Amino acid sequence: MMEFRVWAPRAGSVELALAGERRAMTSEDGGWWSVEAAAADGDAYAFVIDGDELPDPRSPAQPDGVHARSRVVDHGARTWTDAGFVAEPLERAVLYELHVGTFTPEGTFDAAIGRLRHLRELGVTHVELMPVNAFDGTHGWGYDGVALFAPFAPYGGPDGLARFVDACHAHGLGVVLDVVYNHLGPSGNYLGRFAPYFTDRYRTPWGDAVNFDDAYSDEVRRFVVDNAVGWVRDFHVDGLRLDAVHAIFDGSATHLLEELTREVHAAAEALGRRAVVIAESDLNDPRLLRAPAAGGYGLDAQWSDDFHHAMHAVLTGERHGYYEDFGSLADLARAFEHAYVYDGRYSRHRKRRHGRPATGLDGSRFVVSLQNHDQVGNRARGERIAQLVSPERARIGAALLLLSPFVPLLFQGEEWAATAPFRYFTAHADPELARAVREGRRREFAAFAWQGPVPDPQDLQTFVCSKLDWSESGREPHASMLRWYRDLLALRSREPELGDRTLLHTRVRFDEDAGWLALHRGTLVVVCNLADVERRIGTGAERRLLLASGVARVEGEQVILGANAVAVLAPAR
Amino acid sequence: MMEFRVWAPRAGSVELALAGERRAMTSEDGGWWSVEAAAADGDAYAFVIDGDELPDPRSPAQPDGVHARSRVVDHGARTWTDAGFVAEPLERAVLYELHVGTFTPEGTFDAAIGRLRHLRELGVTHVELMPVNAFDGTHGWGYDGVALFAPFAPYGGPDGLARFVDACHAHGLGVVLDVVYNHLGPSGNYLGRFAPYFTDRYRTPWGDAVNFDDAYSDEVRRFVVDNAVGWVRDFHVDGLRLDAVHAIFDGSATHLLEELTREVHAAAEALGRRAVVIAESDLNDPRLLRAPAAGGYGLDAQWSDDFHHAMHAVLTGERHGYYEDFGSLADLARAFEHAYVYDGRYSRHRKRRHGRPATGLDGSRFVVSLQNHDQVGNRARGERIAQLVSPERARIGAALLLLSPFVPLLFQGEEWAATAPFRYFTAHADPELARAVREGRRREFAAFAWQGPVPDPQDLQTFVCSKLDWSESGREPHASMLRWYRDLLALRSREPELGDRTLLHTRVRFDEDAGWLALHRGTLVVVCNLADVERRIGTGAERRLLLASGVARVEGEQVILGANAVAVLAPAR
Repeated sequence: MMEFRVWAPRAGSVELALAGERRAMTSEDGGWWSVEAAAADGDAYAFVIDGDELPDPRSPAQPDGVHARSRVVDHGARTWTDAGFVAEPLERAVLYELHVGTFTPEGTFDAAIGRLRHLRELGVTHVELMPVNAFDGTHGWGYDGVALFAPFAPYGGPDGLARFVDACHAHGLGVVLDVVYNHLGPSGNYLGRFAPYFTDRYRTPWGDAVNFDDAYSDEVRRFVVDNAVGWVRDFHVDGLRLDAVHAIFDGSATHLLEELTREVHAAAEALGRRAVVIAESDLNDPRLLRAPAAGGYGLDAQWSDDFHHAMHAVLTGERHGYYEDFGSLADLARAFEHAYVYDGRYSRHRKRRHGRPATGLDGSRFVVSLQNHDQVGNRARGERIAQLVSPERARIGAALLLLSPFVPLLFQGEEWAATAPFRYFTAHADPELARAVREGRRREFAAFAWQGPVPDPQDLQTFVCSKLDWSESGREPHASMLRWYRDLLALRSREPELGDRTLLHTRVRFDEDAGWLALHRGTLVVVCNLADVERRIGTGAERRLLLASGVARVEGEQVILGANAVAVLAPAR
Repeated sequence: MMEFRVWAPRAGSVELALAGERRAMTSEDGGWWSVEAAAADGDAYAFVIDGDELPDPRSPAQPDGVHARSRVVDHGARTWTDAGFVAEPLERAVLYELHVGTFTPEGTFDAAIGRLRHLRELGVTHVELMPVNAFDGTHGWGYDGVALFAPFAPYGGPDGLARFVDACHAHGLGVVLDVVYNHLGPSGNYLGRFAPYFTDRYRTPWGDAVNFDDAYSDEVRRFVVDNAVGWVRDFHVDGLRLDAVHAIFDGSATHLLEELTREVHAAAEALGRRAVVIAESDLNDPRLLRAPAAGGYGLDAQWSDDFHHAMHAVLTGERHGYYEDFGSLADLARAFEHAYVYDGRYSRHRKRRHGRPATGLDGSRFVVSLQNHDQVGNRARGERIAQLVSPERARIGAALLLLSPFVPLLFQGEEWAATAPFRYFTAHADPELARAVREGRRREFAAFAWQGPVPDPQDLQTFVCSKLDWSESGREPHASMLRWYRDLLALRSREPELGDRTLLHTRVRFDEDAGWLALHRGTLVVVCNLADVERRIGTGAERRLLLASGVARVEGEQVILGANAVAVLAPAR
């Protein structure tokens, strides 16, 4: 016998639909309903709320899609081979973001396992999976999740995810999972039929906000915290990346993020593992990272978009949209030395002051990238940096990223300058929704017509063309880019000074007019010439070359760099 | 010549209307417009935004109402007699909340001055004025303010307010001013015609939220902070009471409340004065009070509704609305020992957990009351506690309030058990708005029909009957209640142990079934018998009587209290 439970505090009657039968469930304290029934792994079931049959809000599997019956899953029945595995701490982490559906031609967890050796050899420490929660349709980015506890069936469902994590661990790789707690997708979201999961107190760009502080919010918070803890406990993940926490509105005295982080940490610790909580945050607010004793939420790290934008604007020269706030070498220097470029400064793009200094927080608290799913995918045509700038400039970006004092994140295929774009793709069955998404996307990019025509997110080809072509990685010019990434990551892990995460120890010198920048990491220095002509750059001490891209020659304490060259220098012996 | 300035970042043209002329204003950086013109104190002016003549958002005076032209006011021209005055710190403060329009028959600042001696003799240290900002109509509570910098003309305008504050200081009384930064009133609010003062990102019970974190919010924040600082600088007020800060939504890294408090403190300090910032907060969140170094906003104090509700529910036996969360002596004991009764506990009324422990914060950080404008006025018929319970029970409430470790606040007339109710009254000229308010009020109290018919807020009589009848205060039974309040306040200021604000030193013993409660303040003890029969209560040591209401007799370490009696006991000599 197995106990089925569901929270439906305002329902008049709740039944369990199992096989051909419906059984009345018993109302319990706090709006919960329960019933015992004979059921086994894989059995289909649903809850019937006042006569309407609906999938379980906490469904562990939706093999037939998000509208169909849920399936019983016995997480305890799985065999794991990862006893004793502990992921690298963030101080030594290099993340690799991948989207299961486009990472391989097959688009499954099992196919992705075949590429783990590549990742290990590349030098990354963690895979970061874009959301794997079930969403409507056959493919999509995953941020439209509606069955938050059910790994997406086309990827391989719960067993596929478990096999993937176990294989990552066997390869010495940790797994960070992208989870979305700020909204639910537009199709297949039945939560509101069960309980007040949503509130109209706040507005998100994607509709009603999740109810984290209004009446009945305790159980909504529990739903989210249990989800977070479940990934750690049942799927052995080593960390969570929380999507857009600035759209998680919570005015209560203990913010959801503080509660969630505390519980995730505690759950991992109780299991003898480590699990980190990383936020995507648009707030530049160090409160997320500070300890609860200092009034913070205690998260382990946050994404730092300022770093990306400062780098992207310098490398590409683009100044549209939010890039209008960036573009100078001074901004890039601030990103290296202070993490936040906007730490209380006036932002032209936001038309207000933004952020607060991250004083005292070290580089292991900030995940930085040159490319990620958002920055690539949220362009009209999903171009990667290698499609926007010369290979030489892309290499400068890689060097600054991977030799930074922060936690670098690579985006799938970045390491070999993959030619596949990463476009925004959806597969909504509902024609109304499909039209809304298509038109919304067009409207969004109306102001950026120079980026070219906007591909239709609903066109299957938009998805298919975003899949990586792994055959490239062995061919030039991709193979040499791959060597560059490997060399940089090897250097990062070999040189103790590159392991120093104290931002106060990071110093950047630059000449805005001459177009060069030197990143000092202890006695090492990464010198970049962003100009289109050769530059002679002083480095303050006698040097020798450790690694270079392009023309680089050392003369005493000076380095001569060709146009768009970058060199890593150590003190002369 | 005088400079006129206004912020109108999206206006195509702005003119100054002064006397019979309109002069073009010059566009400056940041959306400001300015012009110099010859003008003197009292001159009427307006700004013309794209052809529409509107009062100044920062108007210092609106003698002809909130829709009419603004007036020039030279704050520097006033004579003050309060040099060197510094208000009592909150540790020693007793606040007295008054509504200028009903405190005296005349309803003016000048008439209120005539009652300051009464307040001083009563033993209060600060007057707390309900909002004096200009609002539409001839009378009202003041929370519908629209000209936030202009003291309400019917009360006496800016000069009247200045005379009142100066007179308070001459009587040794500080002045705390109630200010409303969470919304603006429904009539005469022209701010949106000037700039994006409002946002639809958040929902308040009173309409659009003020824009504290969206585009253009820097100047909106400046508007509010300048307003707060202006009361201190131009009107010498000694503190601000911020209305409903839980409806001040600000997701930015530095919360408006932190910025405002820092600036108010700094402005007062620069002037050699002291100004406190007190929040009305429904959050039970100690972050408001903690120091910025500990991740807090650094406010001086907050209202503690939990104290009121715990006391009210015990004294009256009422359990409707939010009182359903209170009613036990255990709750009242928690209020005394921990300030927040709900510090993470589940609240039935809110249908969620609420609050967070206020660990380490002392009693001077919490303003408590037995009655205040909200708790009296937000009943259908505006009854005071003395209309709801026997005089004996009201005296118990007064003793617990005034001998508590917190900052007590009295509501006008409470000290003599005034018979005037304090009802919700408005004077909206717009018939639509008048109807909406009338019907809204009726709807609000539909569930509380037992409170009696809901008076019409628009009926002049609803306002008039809320005015205090001062002749009562010298007559019995009012005179003896007044003596009781005076005696309690005298005791509070005389006994050093009652000045101890450390909540850890406060201990409450009670017997829920027998209905008695003993509040220990050092070696002193306040013992209340809330039962309808005599009780014999142990006090742990030989005692003598300091003060009592009702039948009270000491026998060794025991006190015998008649029904609804209260006694203050000291150790036997």
